[in-house]
Amino acid sequence: MTATFPPRGSKADLEAPDARFAPKFDADGLIPAIAVDAGDGTVLMQAYMNADALQATLEKGEAVYWSRSRQELWHKGATSGNIQRIVDVLTDCDQDSLVLRVEQQGGAACHTGRRTCFYRRVPLNQGTDVELEDLGDDPVFDPVDVYGAM
Amino acid sequence: MTATFPPRGSKADLEAPDARFAPKFDADGLIPAIAVDAGDGTVLMQAYMNADALQATLEKGEAVYWSRSRQELWHKGATSGNIQRIVDVLTDCDQDSLVLRVEQQGGAACHTGRRTCFYRRVPLNQGTDVELEDLGDDPVFDPVDVYGAM
Repeated sequence: MTATFPPRGSKADLEAPDARFAPKFDADGLIPAIAVDAGDGTVLMQAYMNADALQATLEKGEAVYWSRSRQELWHKGATSGNIQRIVDVLTDCDQDSLVLRVEQQGGAACHTGRRTCFYRRVPLNQGTDVELEDLGDDPVFDPVDVYGAM
Repeated sequence: MTATFPPRGSKADLEAPDARFAPKFDADGLIPAIAVDAGDGTVLMQAYMNADALQATLEKGEAVYWSRSRQELWHKGATSGNIQRIVDVLTDCDQDSLVLRVEQQGGAACHTGRRTCFYRRVPLNQGTDVELEDLGDDPVFDPVDVYGAM
């Protein structure tokens, strides 16, 4: 890893409207990144970036994450063609979370072929052992066509 | 901590539209939760839940997080009155992230008094040592009135 970001200042420094960008990476060197559709704001997916992924995202203008399962940089869409063009990167008050406003190429962010990874609802008030409720999103693509047999 | 959720099955089990809800908590026992405005989808904040916080959220129908800084359950709005009424809880394909569709009481999720914690943009293509750009959101409340001197 080579990218470095500025050291973090006081809470007041971090929260100022014109603060220096000083993202907080956790003990594993990661910051959560939430990709939302730049058009209608739908949350598409949530993943993580390390400093190199964040630097690459800001430079390329395309979302680059850190794959925790593969332990490598993950240029989203490099396999499927479904890259995420960055419209805006936002950060929150204490700079430990990112929102990416993206144009999702191919119309689907989820590896299941659906537009968003968040395609199911958790029932309320039914305890902690429940069946999820499908929101009924039709897949935009067949994952087997895009990735081969999984 | 007393709440328990079902054990996690195979990838195919976890991704099925009618899967059993088997959320993944990380090494610290936490899962990220993204609160969005149920009206227009704006991302308001991102925090974490442990199993007890998630159970409490599903039971109460109000967002309860785990405060990493205070190491305690955090019923959002208990101090400020600005609770988040839950409209929907969604989970993603591999069930390691949550989206809360909420009605934000008081109109502001951020402790700075702004509607959303994501009130600044990170400039693209200017390296890793940059000043954030204020999106110009006016505070909805004065934090000193709500929380006292900070």
